[in-house]
Amino acid sequence: MRSGTNLPRVGGFNRSVILDAIRRSPEGVSRVEIAAATGLSAQTVSNIVRKLLDEDLVTESGRAASTGGKPRILLRTNPTAYFSVGIHIDPDTITLVATDLDGHVRGTVHRRTPRNPSANQVVRQVAQTVRGLLGKAEIPVDRLLGLGVACPGPLDFSRGLVLTPPNLPGWHEVPLVAYLQDEFGVPVALDNDATAAAIGERWAGAGGARTGSFAFLYFGTGVGGGLLLGDQAWRGNSGNAGEFGHVVVAPNGADCFCGNKGCLEAYVRPHAIVAETATLLEKRSASLDLTLEPTKEFADYETICRAAMADHPVARQVIQRAAAKVAIAATTLVNVVDVDRIVLGGKGVRYVVEPYRAAIAEAVNARSIARHARKVEVEPSLIGEDAGARGAAALVLHGAYSPQLATLFSPST
Amino acid sequence: MRSGTNLPRVGGFNRSVILDAIRRSPEGVSRVEIAAATGLSAQTVSNIVRKLLDEDLVTESGRAASTGGKPRILLRTNPTAYFSVGIHIDPDTITLVATDLDGHVRGTVHRRTPRNPSANQVVRQVAQTVRGLLGKAEIPVDRLLGLGVACPGPLDFSRGLVLTPPNLPGWHEVPLVAYLQDEFGVPVALDNDATAAAIGERWAGAGGARTGSFAFLYFGTGVGGGLLLGDQAWRGNSGNAGEFGHVVVAPNGADCFCGNKGCLEAYVRPHAIVAETATLLEKRSASLDLTLEPTKEFADYETICRAAMADHPVARQVIQRAAAKVAIAATTLVNVVDVDRIVLGGKGVRYVVEPYRAAIAEAVNARSIARHARKVEVEPSLIGEDAGARGAAALVLHGAYSPQLATLFSPST
Repeated sequence: MRSGTNLPRVGGFNRSVILDAIRRSPEGVSRVEIAAATGLSAQTVSNIVRKLLDEDLVTESGRAASTGGKPRILLRTNPTAYFSVGIHIDPDTITLVATDLDGHVRGTVHRRTPRNPSANQVVRQVAQTVRGLLGKAEIPVDRLLGLGVACPGPLDFSRGLVLTPPNLPGWHEVPLVAYLQDEFGVPVALDNDATAAAIGERWAGAGGARTGSFAFLYFGTGVGGGLLLGDQAWRGNSGNAGEFGHVVVAPNGADCFCGNKGCLEAYVRPHAIVAETATLLEKRSASLDLTLEPTKEFADYETICRAAMADHPVARQVIQRAAAKVAIAATTLVNVVDVDRIVLGGKGVRYVVEPYRAAIAEAVNARSIARHARKVEVEPSLIGEDAGARGAAALVLHGAYSPQLATLFSPST
Repeated sequence: MRSGTNLPRVGGFNRSVILDAIRRSPEGVSRVEIAAATGLSAQTVSNIVRKLLDEDLVTESGRAASTGGKPRILLRTNPTAYFSVGIHIDPDTITLVATDLDGHVRGTVHRRTPRNPSANQVVRQVAQTVRGLLGKAEIPVDRLLGLGVACPGPLDFSRGLVLTPPNLPGWHEVPLVAYLQDEFGVPVALDNDATAAAIGERWAGAGGARTGSFAFLYFGTGVGGGLLLGDQAWRGNSGNAGEFGHVVVAPNGADCFCGNKGCLEAYVRPHAIVAETATLLEKRSASLDLTLEPTKEFADYETICRAAMADHPVARQVIQRAAAKVAIAATTLVNVVDVDRIVLGGKGVRYVVEPYRAAIAEAVNARSIARHARKVEVEPSLIGEDAGARGAAALVLHGAYSPQLATLFSPST
């Protein structure tokens, strides 16, 4: 049953609405402008801003030129009031990013993901890396707002906040969240890496560049997706919405690790791209050869992406085919969720973001059913190839400071 | 920018939360139970209930047996306080349904959809049919809460509330909403038929049977879908979310009217089922013949559906193939939106709901990526084959009385 709401909850929600309005105005914003933009009364804005100033989350800095009357004091967020650390567990690489309250990166660490570690090793090693990053970025531990952990789906939230990433046997059932909570005494958020990336993208978009509704298509070792619908993250009933890589693009097609056949991911993940290229190269003359090292799959994948962009005929053909499949899946996605923006990110599109972008933009605006009612913008991510880790850091900021409708209701809702 | 909220808006929202709680308790519910279920204070519940009693929307009827203390007065909705009429424009049939406040049907009219009528003819004819239905169902016009109109997508809300149903040339740009508003002096809501059906399903589900998140797969002359995510209708950015019929099931496959290739609808709509059956029958012995009348496509479709259920080998094969394609599209849908319930409705599944249900249930629970994290229930609709019209009627009730988060914010949000 839907819960009702009450005044204290409304107060907390309006506080996050005002903080979000200030955060989205890097040039500064006055109390009067906030009231106009949010529909809140001058009195409500004034009361809440006073508390934000007391908490040091917001600063007064400068005055706006006025068109008459006294100049208005501008408010800005105080980016160094708090910091967040995001941890992205990918089968290849663990990435840690420290950001300030504005989402600006203050430090980054990449580590090779250990194979078959013990749970004990994992949690201690990650905690140690967090401490190292905080030191390097000169962030005092008492200014750490929280930690975010992102890993590839599917996630099983019903079994508690343990990691169970696919294709990483040693990482199953690792109690990383509980360990980090104990170790640092701050909240730790866990989410699917693509959903985290979508939240990170929303956080990074100054001036409202990433509000509203969009799908974040995340290309890493696998292919994921995160949905922002009506400015709220839609995680789905089990926390596994937006699994873009598991849109079926070839019924009864290639086997996918997920147990289904013909999923997009089975065709376009780095492993598949490397295998397809190798098969095609065998049939061609030696002069077309690419130097691939089968032991370094992701490096090989990037070699192929760069070769495609340099017009290598085999590599170009492989990437074009992949882009065409991504475009078919994106058209289905747009027909199902009806978003007007698609964002591409993750290390998998470092070199091929433009051919993927172009293929998707062409397809969704020529073949989606509502194409006459709205144009879909297709754009590279603002948070780039570390989108998973930056998204993980944003989980903490988002949880504490974004206007979330769920905060209006009691936890039982 | 996200708007804040304030006390009057919260009051209106809590009122709909309480009305919804009463509506969902056909056995009656006490004030104390409402407070417990909604998290609202006893004082808030008491104040709002008093107003609902004054407005005659709710009645006190009987007392619950008590476990001590004085017996508690039970509250029920007053189903005849208001009525709603839903109008479903389908390329074959116009269906009108009058319902009371509980969503119970008080009268139904089916009319053949006129081909190439003038806009003038359409609006006058519909208005006349509404008056006839109100008379037959003995509903006084002053008890009419509003009218709902549902038609197949895509809808173009940016061009105002005019009908522009696909495949019905004479029906384009018909200002039905404005005409009905003038004629009856009540609000008129317009929506996609499948979204309307999803809202109708939520309204019909007593005791919380249809809250939370589900996808309504709507089979009519075409194939549509409506999404309820987190107990809120998700219409998408342009009002065209949930287009289940345009999930691609065969890349570069059959041409679809929407301009894409290989959409589910191109394979499973009645037109396609009839054509495929006719082709297969030509290759078979005459003893397997079905009596089809090419001028009555939907009747032929139903003949095939009934023959399939009676084990006619050709018809059975055609329906099994269709069910398999529906199941592939449903798996993609579940991977994208992560709902734990799928509801099947519309006149297209009158005879084949069970083979479709079984094929979908098998696929989504064996092949969706989060299958280990949750089971997906697949069920026939509660509102049956007139789901479009009953959904249209529910649009009005839903708009006036369901807890909708949007009511917490100013219209600019």
